[in-house]
Amino acid sequence: MNNQEIKDSGFSDKAENQGNRVLKKDGSSNIQKLGLSFFDRFDLYHSLVSMKSWQFFATILFVYLMINLIFATGFVLVGIDKLYDSNVVKVESDFLRAFFFSTQTLTTLGYGQMSPTGIGANVIASIEAFIGLLMFALLTGLLYGRFSRPKAKLMFSTNALISPYLENSKGLMVRLANPKNSNLINVNASFLFSYIVIDKGEKIRKYFNLDLEIKEIKIMAASWTLVHPLDENSPLKTFTRESLRESNAELIVQIEGYDETYNQQVSTRTSYTCDEVVFDAKFVRILKHSEDGQVGVDLGRLSEFTTV
Amino acid sequence: MNNQEIKDSGFSDKAENQGNRVLKKDGSSNIQKLGLSFFDRFDLYHSLVSMKSWQFFATILFVYLMINLIFATGFVLVGIDKLYDSNVVKVESDFLRAFFFSTQTLTTLGYGQMSPTGIGANVIASIEAFIGLLMFALLTGLLYGRFSRPKAKLMFSTNALISPYLENSKGLMVRLANPKNSNLINVNASFLFSYIVIDKGEKIRKYFNLDLEIKEIKIMAASWTLVHPLDENSPLKTFTRESLRESNAELIVQIEGYDETYNQQVSTRTSYTCDEVVFDAKFVRILKHSEDGQVGVDLGRLSEFTTV
Amino acid sequence: MNNQEIKDSGFSDKAENQGNRVLKKDGSSNIQKLGLSFFDRFDLYHSLVSMKSWQFFATILFVYLMINLIFATGFVLVGIDKLYDSNVVKVESDFLRAFFFSTQTLTTLGYGQMSPTGIGANVIASIEAFIGLLMFALLTGLLYGRFSRPKAKLMFSTNALISPYLENSKGLMVRLANPKNSNLINVNASFLFSYIVIDKGEKIRKYFNLDLEIKEIKIMAASWTLVHPLDENSPLKTFTRESLRESNAELIVQIEGYDETYNQQVSTRTSYTCDEVVFDAKFVRILKHSEDGQVGVDLGRLSEFTTV
Amino acid sequence: MNNQEIKDSGFSDKAENQGNRVLKKDGSSNIQKLGLSFFDRFDLYHSLVSMKSWQFFATILFVYLMINLIFATGFVLVGIDKLYDSNVVKVESDFLRAFFFSTQTLTTLGYGQMSPTGIGANVIASIEAFIGLLMFALLTGLLYGRFSRPKAKLMFSTNALISPYLENSKGLMVRLANPKNSNLINVNASFLFSYIVIDKGEKIRKYFNLDLEIKEIKIMAASWTLVHPLDENSPLKTFTRESLRESNAELIVQIEGYDETYNQQVSTRTSYTCDEVVFDAKFVRILKHSEDGQVGVDLGRLSEFTTV
Repeated sequence: MNNQEIKDSGFSDKAENQGNRVLKKDGSSNIQKLGLSFFDRFDLYHSLVSMKSWQFFATILFVYLMINLIFATGFVLVGIDKLYDSNVVKVESDFLRAFFFSTQTLTTLGYGQMSPTGIGANVIASIEAFIGLLMFALLTGLLYGRFSRPKAKLMFSTNALISPYLENSKGLMVRLANPKNSNLINVNASFLFSYIVIDKGEKIRKYFNLDLEIKEIKIMAASWTLVHPLDENSPLKTFTRESLRESNAELIVQIEGYDETYNQQVSTRTSYTCDEVVFDAKFVRILKHSEDGQVGVDLGRLSEFTTV
Repeated sequence: MNNQEIKDSGFSDKAENQGNRVLKKDGSSNIQKLGLSFFDRFDLYHSLVSMKSWQFFATILFVYLMINLIFATGFVLVGIDKLYDSNVVKVESDFLRAFFFSTQTLTTLGYGQMSPTGIGANVIASIEAFIGLLMFALLTGLLYGRFSRPKAKLMFSTNALISPYLENSKGLMVRLANPKNSNLINVNASFLFSYIVIDKGEKIRKYFNLDLEIKEIKIMAASWTLVHPLDENSPLKTFTRESLRESNAELIVQIEGYDETYNQQVSTRTSYTCDEVVFDAKFVRILKHSEDGQVGVDLGRLSEFTTV
Repeated sequence: MNNQEIKDSGFSDKAENQGNRVLKKDGSSNIQKLGLSFFDRFDLYHSLVSMKSWQFFATILFVYLMINLIFATGFVLVGIDKLYDSNVVKVESDFLRAFFFSTQTLTTLGYGQMSPTGIGANVIASIEAFIGLLMFALLTGLLYGRFSRPKAKLMFSTNALISPYLENSKGLMVRLANPKNSNLINVNASFLFSYIVIDKGEKIRKYFNLDLEIKEIKIMAASWTLVHPLDENSPLKTFTRESLRESNAELIVQIEGYDETYNQQVSTRTSYTCDEVVFDAKFVRILKHSEDGQVGVDLGRLSEFTTV
Repeated sequence: MNNQEIKDSGFSDKAENQGNRVLKKDGSSNIQKLGLSFFDRFDLYHSLVSMKSWQFFATILFVYLMINLIFATGFVLVGIDKLYDSNVVKVESDFLRAFFFSTQTLTTLGYGQMSPTGIGANVIASIEAFIGLLMFALLTGLLYGRFSRPKAKLMFSTNALISPYLENSKGLMVRLANPKNSNLINVNASFLFSYIVIDKGEKIRKYFNLDLEIKEIKIMAASWTLVHPLDENSPLKTFTRESLRESNAELIVQIEGYDETYNQQVSTRTSYTCDEVVFDAKFVRILKHSEDGQVGVDLGRLSEFTTV
């Protein structure tokens, strides 16, 4: 490892993205994929499990309405008189009556106060009930896919700090914690440091793996402070506040671990631009102890620091 | 490895938790998370899959009742006369009648002895049946999520022992077994040893990885005795019964393996405080052989030891 | 690695199982777990997903009948006259009528030719439909759990062979293949060799990891022959046919890989007792080529060998 | 690693497949499995989750029809008069009437305009509703199994190039990208190079692992160019266009990574025959920057190269 330069980082190495960060704050890539049609890029399952909840429920409500509209039309086409209606007071609109019958069929509710007569209506009802089961099976899978997706919602400190470290030395520090009650085990971290250099008149973005004092912990119980020692091997050793900005430096932090609730490997990323690096500051202590000796960690102050 | 000190263990390193163990006996963290609102810490899926069975079933029964109450109210508001009831002897209470109709709709039972008439009641029934399918899809996913969670319920010996080991040497030993009929393969273990030192007048909790004689086994068929040799490299070599207690020492044992029933990586932890370490004792032999040569292991006596 | 001795194999190390193999041919452990109650050992999910198909379907049919019997009894107790029956020709037996009504309710079928009247019967029906949904949700999860379990059904050669290997040398060889159309990738193998020695008059079973010529392949397309070279480092180098039998030797083969159909890590094991080791034989060639140059591998002859 | 020769690759090592590639372009094996019956090779779950969508839906529609035909026959055998039909205008065909009743029962629709009378018809209906639930539970699991399967649909460049690399050197290069919006992390790559040599008059296919400049990247955001340096250690260093063809050379590329949408490890493979290797060419630059500094990668031109 040893603060190794990465020649191909998976990101673009040419510095066309001068002035833009490589990774967004939420950890997603800031590089657009061009030259592909919508369907080349589109992945239905990905879209459905990763869209927002209200979008998801709006989508399935829309699909529910569409299917019922289609089948209601089918029942009307086959003849509304083929839907026997035992109600004394009927819904006046033929289409609405067919629509409600369709919902009763698609959901396999089947009150039976309306029922199909004749082969045509019966065939349509048989198909609709079958499609209802299919849709519902799909829905079950999608919902499970959605809420069983591990979401490693780690809290990262707002800033990365250049802090005093050991005797007479400094370290680049980021603090993080798991706000949730779930357990993260075998957690490992990596720092990827990137900046722009001028090579033969061309701006090139370089990438370096930064050494960490501790790369992996067995269980993340309280908070964890990641420390990259700014020793003679560090690519950051000669950087100042100004040169960091000039070179458009960016620190990418990637955390991986095993979530014991979801029983899956999870990973999360964030990035710090040079504006988010604070020099000569250190994180405040957030461990507290109550009178009965119980230890707590004050995660509301995770990002707090004092200048030194 | 070599009995390495861990500078950041994921636990608090300041000894405010003097007098309290770092890890509870059941392997969960003993550090409270403060400074966060309930919703920052809350993870609905985590809560629902990890709560006790009776809590889970009470929760879904409560949700079932609530949804029916809401829709029953809806049917009453739209007009109870819109629910046609073919029964000769009707349930007298209008609300109860609406409630029972609601249960028949939400579960997509749809007897049809009661049925909606008019647009309003039909719309509500269509929505309720759709929500019924949604709820049920969620329930299916949650139940699967609950019972497909691997529970590596390993048995650990009640005490950790300081036992004779090899010629003229001693070892820190913990015995464990898998009581279930499932197979655990590629099982690996780690010992994390923690105690408090006084550094510049401040109490600091230190953490050390302890070497193990065998760290990984291919398959855990019978019991497994973990052995940390108390040789010259061991951080425990100078400890006595008294100094262990004074320094608030704690041994954290973490086991990971692959469960062939659940097809998932599982892990489990426990901890031994100084009070749970027994000096100069050794585990009794628990392998038995029946007359036909069949070998058995008596897990009821897993924790038994004799003093030496 | 280097043909390392394993001091704790997870199996019993005392040779009480003299005359019995450590691992059964199907890869399951041959050691019984004693001293635990049935419920200590019992894992409901494990039992339900690993039992045979006919047992599983018999179990759920039994549960279906039991639940219906219980609810039928409930309906009879509340008064069979509370089940309104519109049929002209009714089922004569009151209990059978209640039973069929119960099946229509539990499955949320709800024909409605029978329907509950009165609060008591309606409450029971509401509960039964809810339990029906719960049962069905459980069933969905169990069925998914059952058929999504990866079954790495590898074929192993019937015998392990001591074959000529390189110039003037020999190797212990086992041949295996994946009979299924699924892809196994990143497949790795290990040989565990075990035999009994007399140490201070006591029979002790020893375990050794055997070196393999190739331990991992990227993809298992055709067959794979595992080779342990019988060089000067091999624990087997001094063994003869007779001493293998006397020392109750056993070869345990464990294969792990990633199944691309099930998208899960899978593992499988088998064992060869000394009686299943053939000296001075080699596997026949099973690669075939058709006239158009297409290559095939004749897995029907996987175990065939010729003596040399 | 060091460009190591692989003695057992999992593929056939004898060159009977002269003139045929080892791996098909889509990454599946080109070796047939012979000597096994259909059922030895058949895996129902594998077939159902990996068949094409239209095949899958045709299969379940077929099963739906078959089950209904069987139960319709059952109802006819037990006596069509046992199916009470309240419709004024009935479906004339007895069998069709039984068929539609069967669909209403199997899907648990249960309109109730037709209902069973008598013990025989009630028993059949009870069983059919139960089987309906079972079928539907299976369907839910299969659909989830189908769409939760990660499909690492990576784009590979059409050709592998021999390109200028560093000062005065060359490299074997393949370019790839993830066209989807999903994230691939911890992506690693391997090159397996295979060619045929004449050993003692017999054609033998040899396999070599080729060194890669970068073997693993943390996240695949844009495109990734795999580079095997053609230095003195490379097995390719003496190859020319002609000798590659004569020796039937083939380059197998395997990519593995973790898909954050599906939360699973995924892998994909492809192969390049000698005809797909282009000498003295280099990939065109596909990074673009818009006026606002946003970076994009033009994946439509992934395979484009210029000769040098």
